[in-house]
Amino acid sequence: MANPLRDPRDTRMPLIAGPCAAVIFGVTGDLSRKKLLPAIYDLANRGLLPPGFGLVGFARRDWSDADFTQFAHDAVTAHARTPFRQEAWERLAEGFRFVSGSFAEDAGYDRLTDTLAALDTERGTGGNHAFYLSIPPSAFPLVCEKLSASGLAGGDGPGWSRVVIEKPFGHDLASAESLNGVLNAVFPESSVFRIDHYLGKETVQNLLALRFANQLFEPVWNANHIDHVQITMAEDIGLDGRAGYYDGIGAARDVIQNHLLQLLALTAMEEPVSFSPGALQTEKIKVLSAARLIEPLADNSARGQYTAGWQGGRPVVGLLAEDGFSATSTTETFAAIALEVNTRRWAGVPFYLRTGKRLGRRVTEIALVFKRAPHLPFDSLVDTDIGKNALVIRVQPDEGITLRFGSKVPGHLMEVRDVNMDFSYGAAFAEESPEAYERLILDMLLGEPSLFPVNREVELSWRILDPVLAHWAEADAAGGRPDPYQAGGWGPASAVAMLARTGREWRRP
Amino acid sequence: MANPLRDPRDTRMPLIAGPCAAVIFGVTGDLSRKKLLPAIYDLANRGLLPPGFGLVGFARRDWSDADFTQFAHDAVTAHARTPFRQEAWERLAEGFRFVSGSFAEDAGYDRLTDTLAALDTERGTGGNHAFYLSIPPSAFPLVCEKLSASGLAGGDGPGWSRVVIEKPFGHDLASAESLNGVLNAVFPESSVFRIDHYLGKETVQNLLALRFANQLFEPVWNANHIDHVQITMAEDIGLDGRAGYYDGIGAARDVIQNHLLQLLALTAMEEPVSFSPGALQTEKIKVLSAARLIEPLADNSARGQYTAGWQGGRPVVGLLAEDGFSATSTTETFAAIALEVNTRRWAGVPFYLRTGKRLGRRVTEIALVFKRAPHLPFDSLVDTDIGKNALVIRVQPDEGITLRFGSKVPGHLMEVRDVNMDFSYGAAFAEESPEAYERLILDMLLGEPSLFPVNREVELSWRILDPVLAHWAEADAAGGRPDPYQAGGWGPASAVAMLARTGREWRRP
Repeated sequence: MANPLRDPRDTRMPLIAGPCAAVIFGVTGDLSRKKLLPAIYDLANRGLLPPGFGLVGFARRDWSDADFTQFAHDAVTAHARTPFRQEAWERLAEGFRFVSGSFAEDAGYDRLTDTLAALDTERGTGGNHAFYLSIPPSAFPLVCEKLSASGLAGGDGPGWSRVVIEKPFGHDLASAESLNGVLNAVFPESSVFRIDHYLGKETVQNLLALRFANQLFEPVWNANHIDHVQITMAEDIGLDGRAGYYDGIGAARDVIQNHLLQLLALTAMEEPVSFSPGALQTEKIKVLSAARLIEPLADNSARGQYTAGWQGGRPVVGLLAEDGFSATSTTETFAAIALEVNTRRWAGVPFYLRTGKRLGRRVTEIALVFKRAPHLPFDSLVDTDIGKNALVIRVQPDEGITLRFGSKVPGHLMEVRDVNMDFSYGAAFAEESPEAYERLILDMLLGEPSLFPVNREVELSWRILDPVLAHWAEADAAGGRPDPYQAGGWGPASAVAMLARTGREWRRP
Repeated sequence: MANPLRDPRDTRMPLIAGPCAAVIFGVTGDLSRKKLLPAIYDLANRGLLPPGFGLVGFARRDWSDADFTQFAHDAVTAHARTPFRQEAWERLAEGFRFVSGSFAEDAGYDRLTDTLAALDTERGTGGNHAFYLSIPPSAFPLVCEKLSASGLAGGDGPGWSRVVIEKPFGHDLASAESLNGVLNAVFPESSVFRIDHYLGKETVQNLLALRFANQLFEPVWNANHIDHVQITMAEDIGLDGRAGYYDGIGAARDVIQNHLLQLLALTAMEEPVSFSPGALQTEKIKVLSAARLIEPLADNSARGQYTAGWQGGRPVVGLLAEDGFSATSTTETFAAIALEVNTRRWAGVPFYLRTGKRLGRRVTEIALVFKRAPHLPFDSLVDTDIGKNALVIRVQPDEGITLRFGSKVPGHLMEVRDVNMDFSYGAAFAEESPEAYERLILDMLLGEPSLFPVNREVELSWRILDPVLAHWAEADAAGGRPDPYQAGGWGPASAVAMLARTGREWRRP
């Protein structure tokens, strides 16, 4: 079958994954059910998985292969992006196996070894095995060690072994280094695939096309023309059943350390030599190495906890009243930081990063706010607020680009007012965007690491963030607490003050 | 009554015209009926004319004031932009007078003198008189001389006298200088208002706001980033009853000499010191002084005549078969020229100007086509045609701005495709745009000359255009003819070749 995505001009790499099997640890969990299994089906349905692809579910439950297949079927019919085609499903499901086991017991790993060996024989998966650890990070060391002990971590056999992990990649620099040590003791860094699903999003990748396939934007993409950059990930939901995970983690660790610093890196980086593996990482690492928190942190950071309010027309409780959440927790649900990027391109341009739960609406965007024109020959008729041009990459929802600029108001006077010009990614392309997980799982099976942060990026991100976490911990020790903000609003007053100090303001996206 | 457009911050000038009367010579003509009388009503309806405003129609017909008022009423109800309000109409019509006379006979001017004196007394027009010459240019000298002889051209009385003329302002540099000599012998240049109705269009004025109220565009608005500029005015109609006027004039004199060179000047000019009267003209004059035809003209110009074809689903005849047109005429209905602007900002950037009748559709636009990015890190997957960014000012219809840039196509590959981002002037503003004639007539009554080309601009434009007119005349003398092009298409093959020589192509707007 011809690959519909295969471009005959592209000689770089095959776009259908080669023979392989994937093992999902924690296959009965929410991520697996809502994202991973549907994405695997969607890839199969698009003809991007090898015919003999094997998928092994690993979990404690006492399931048969048929039970697992039924579970996967339900997950796929509920959550897959592409239409359900019985034929594609059946071909995929032939390779489904289930291994019952706990992370700690060798017996489970023995059964897994046998199952993978059988798949190699029955379906020609060639000893190529991907281990997707959809499990709590605390279990990473144990599972890695067991994979190593059972010989599954590769190195000896004919095929490749890869490990896939989800955030959090540690909770500070020290723990991240420790985790990377554990991982790299078993898997060489080139076999570790860290999922930051934002990097799989089309709009994030489009940022690269926008910058480097055009001549229009890059000349103004620097400190000569940009006043500051705002990177926002706002959620309207609260804890959404994740109280246990979230308490002690908070917004900065959960979102800024990974998603927002990755978006920062892509926004601020220099042009890579190519999009070959490694070139992108080189540029991102340069940015993360050059990024520093703006001091003093008391003025240049903000944290908050949502209080009761209204959202979507319904009253919602405050964080400390949420089920399963400690009523005295100082875990923040809103975090904002200010960074400088000490490069020739960006010196002097603040990058403001913010994220929060229970904000006004769900939106992720990167906004480059331009300096005002150095002179406005319009006398008194121009409002001083106009002319702050902005180029906004709308990451989600309503993916696209907005350009804000000043335009003449119709009429006799030379009156200027800010207007928006929109580009909608969805309206412009007949091609539907694949889900981020489709992209990333396929890349991982192909061994294409460009969109996965490497250990150095993770560690640099923690190095950036650690001082603000320490600053907040010190405040806590002195009896401080995150600032309250009303659910449905845009964060605490301290966040507003943080920008107001320099005469700036947050966008209301 | 408060002026709805009066901005309290604006201390520069009153926005309601002061006491005055206007005289329209050739008041029974098409321009008067379709544009001038409706625009005057619209201004009155918007409260922008003084309460005692007087309007004198001057023509051969043996009309009473009531006949003229009825004629104006019909014109207004048929063509005015704003709703008909009886009260506003009646207040305006009280000041209507008609003077029957020929351009040559003193008696008519005597009656005009009496009528204006009576208006000054009855309606307080204060000796302020505007003379709108909506008549063939050949009659300008005669009428100016008579106005002077009858003492109406001002200088002695208490009020001001202004003269308003419509293109063509001569048919080459020599005749334009001669015409300006005639005009300026009677009216000082500050009292001469030359109408180029394109300059009254909101989108043209918005070009200034776009460039100088924003920081986003100006940094790339130069030869470092722009490959070339295309300025197009395409009409879908043919001669439209103007055969007598058009034969011997042609597209270059009719459109390029005025509209397109003015758009060029606004596009290419430096920032004016302010929008005070004169500052804009200073900058436009600098551009027109620096503009030169690109040589050799045989390669860098094109002219054509439309042949029979289809338009709007109906067959149309060719130019030479049009009623009232000479079957052997070499008058061009399509003209394209290439200019360079020898300034630091623009050296090396060709400006391509084209206009034609019976083209694919009615559109006027200014397109800045960017250079390709100097390097594309996208390997073989990027089509070589992409990445030619363009910023397009859509002057008419569908006024607005289009930005063309490359965007990633959704999917696994880094494939880039050109997309458009649109800004619609009409959709962005609740305020309706005034007609160009409203703006220009009001400016003229206010004595605000910014949007009117001065004699020097007219002469510089002819100086630019004369060599190509001479080149075509030489070709005619050697038996040459304009190249044929099919009605409904986009001009002759020679126009395509003109850009193809340098690897460029015309936009299909």
